[in-house]
Amino acid sequence: MSEDPTPDQIMQVGLGFWASKTLLSAVEMELFTELARHPESGEALRDRLGLHPRSSQDFLDALVALGFLERGDGVYRNTPSTDLFLDKHNPSYIGGILEMANQRLYRFWGGLTEALRTGQLQNEAKSGEMPFFQALYADPARLKGFLAAMTGLSHGANLAIARQFPWHEHETFVDIGTAQGDLAVQIALANEHLTGVGFDLPEVAPIFEDYVEHNGVQERLRFAAGDFFADDLPKADVLVMGHILHDWSLDEKRKLISKAHEALPEEGALIVYETIIDDDRSKNAFGLLMSLNMLIETEHGFDYTAADCMGWMTDAGFSRTRAEPDRAGLNGHRREVAARARTPASGADCYARPGCTREHSRRPGVRLGLQEPSVSKGKP
Amino acid sequence: MSEDPTPDQIMQVGLGFWASKTLLSAVEMELFTELARHPESGEALRDRLGLHPRSSQDFLDALVALGFLERGDGVYRNTPSTDLFLDKHNPSYIGGILEMANQRLYRFWGGLTEALRTGQLQNEAKSGEMPFFQALYADPARLKGFLAAMTGLSHGANLAIARQFPWHEHETFVDIGTAQGDLAVQIALANEHLTGVGFDLPEVAPIFEDYVEHNGVQERLRFAAGDFFADDLPKADVLVMGHILHDWSLDEKRKLISKAHEALPEEGALIVYETIIDDDRSKNAFGLLMSLNMLIETEHGFDYTAADCMGWMTDAGFSRTRAEPDRAGLNGHRREVAARARTPASGADCYARPGCTREHSRRPGVRLGLQEPSVSKGKP
Repeated sequence: MSEDPTPDQIMQVGLGFWASKTLLSAVEMELFTELARHPESGEALRDRLGLHPRSSQDFLDALVALGFLERGDGVYRNTPSTDLFLDKHNPSYIGGILEMANQRLYRFWGGLTEALRTGQLQNEAKSGEMPFFQALYADPARLKGFLAAMTGLSHGANLAIARQFPWHEHETFVDIGTAQGDLAVQIALANEHLTGVGFDLPEVAPIFEDYVEHNGVQERLRFAAGDFFADDLPKADVLVMGHILHDWSLDEKRKLISKAHEALPEEGALIVYETIIDDDRSKNAFGLLMSLNMLIETEHGFDYTAADCMGWMTDAGFSRTRAEPDRAGLNGHRREVAARARTPASGADCYARPGCTREHSRRPGVRLGLQEPSVSKGKP
Repeated sequence: MSEDPTPDQIMQVGLGFWASKTLLSAVEMELFTELARHPESGEALRDRLGLHPRSSQDFLDALVALGFLERGDGVYRNTPSTDLFLDKHNPSYIGGILEMANQRLYRFWGGLTEALRTGQLQNEAKSGEMPFFQALYADPARLKGFLAAMTGLSHGANLAIARQFPWHEHETFVDIGTAQGDLAVQIALANEHLTGVGFDLPEVAPIFEDYVEHNGVQERLRFAAGDFFADDLPKADVLVMGHILHDWSLDEKRKLISKAHEALPEEGALIVYETIIDDDRSKNAFGLLMSLNMLIETEHGFDYTAADCMGWMTDAGFSRTRAEPDRAGLNGHRREVAARARTPASGADCYARPGCTREHSRRPGVRLGLQEPSVSKGKP
């Protein structure tokens, strides 16, 4: 009897948007930020958050049952995880992507069937609204908060890359699409001989520079403003493109890889890192779902496998491409790493982290990469 | 290091609507029905379903990675579970509730924050659209398909109730809100001495009568048309209310329990079954989320605990209420059963199945109960 198929998994995933939206609403209301101040009774929380009495207890108790809150003697508190990651005042806050999921992605994904049938994106660009990222970039305070959230999410992977790549063989690097700059900062902190550049749109400059200074590496890291399609890429021994390629069409991906090849010296290397889809395209659900998110959010973006990536790199003139498992993750999980190409001439590396997220924007196409959660204890 | 909190669960649930909507779109497109005919290549599926080539492979491979499809040599097929439960031509099809989740609930849940703040439902009734269930009830073919889907979902629990309650002590029963009538049919099939009534709105009559005849129990089961608020309930030794109470306000719940008490003889019993919330309100996430679904869908509905239910029954004059674990589930899971009250005078039972769903309608308020998935091998 126990081998008979059951509809449990079908129902759990099919109705999974219930638990999902419940958590997203809690993040939207800053419930966990409120409880990080101190635990509170249901009545006090209801007042603070403006909850109607009809379902406030159902909401809070659902979060308890889902493992995001604890409750004792009628008093609610965060779990260690929600306290660390969903308190807006904590540098380890990762709620920025969930705020965006709540505000935008949830409703755009309502158009998934249409997107699958037409190949058309389903976000603001479809309906002529002001693009979210245009609004975000126009607001420095909001942009800063958002990029900081992205740092929290990518931090663990950044630490791994900073340690795992043979940086001792190089002198300089450029982080293409640097956002707040945590990858550049971690590389610099772990490798004191290196100097580097964070390359991104001009609005990012003050946020990057603040962060770099806060981490004490301003002597070795500088910002370069530009557009990676319109402008030449800054030259360095190593170029890193983290969560960049998946926003773009195949031709645009190839173009960026070619530009990287042009910007590198004979002994240089390109590191690409993303939520790589396993080569068999049958295991890494998150990478495949991220690719569908690219359908929803971009005109031509898609996620890819290590084999895909290594092929593009080879076509661009890189050789000795390879995919490398990343065992350095802080939570001990083995992550799949995609292609790495190194040659005496030049090399390219893809580091991949299934299930990782970092959201940052470039042009109207959203660049979304997901960081496998592994945040270090120390705060940047 | 491995004890450090990680954001994994936060991210998995927060972005859980991706996997959820992917499966819902697949059900909408009748992908599994198509593959139940025979396995197909990605290209053939693309043509049959009208998928754009941009993301068709990502979509199908995401379903493979999520465990809802299998793929070998480029040919896709259903899993045993999706073949049994998501093929529309199979009597065990449970996709009806997922079709409704896709068509309605997903977008209404986008209003969860507003609902939590205002206590107001978020479905068609809020915006003045034609209520879904009004349209459904006006279309006999569509209503039939829908009620049949609900049968598929509740079947396992119906079998358990038919076997677990001491039916030998009674002669007659009424299934209040009978829908297609599977609970009534299973009780009749398992207890040959019983005669029973299915009580529901008039539009349900032909569907019920068809189903009863198909199962060969038309000599012992009849339909009674009515409205359980406006009309007296049919009298019998046992009344059953499965997934009825949670659609209604507290006063309305008490009213229905009182009416049941009035319709029962001295030695009678009321059975109430629902997605009961555990008494501590900390474990059964599904029951708590179902209560939030009642917020989204109804004016005053909410789910409840066994303790709540037993209290209402006691207040209505029932005594010896009790909650009883149901170990008869076909998949061997222990289910929590809520209050059961039996006395020499009269008794009431609540059978509860956490995580169970059956959708059927009554009045504009939607009555949604969830059946813990455990479908028997035999088809009704």
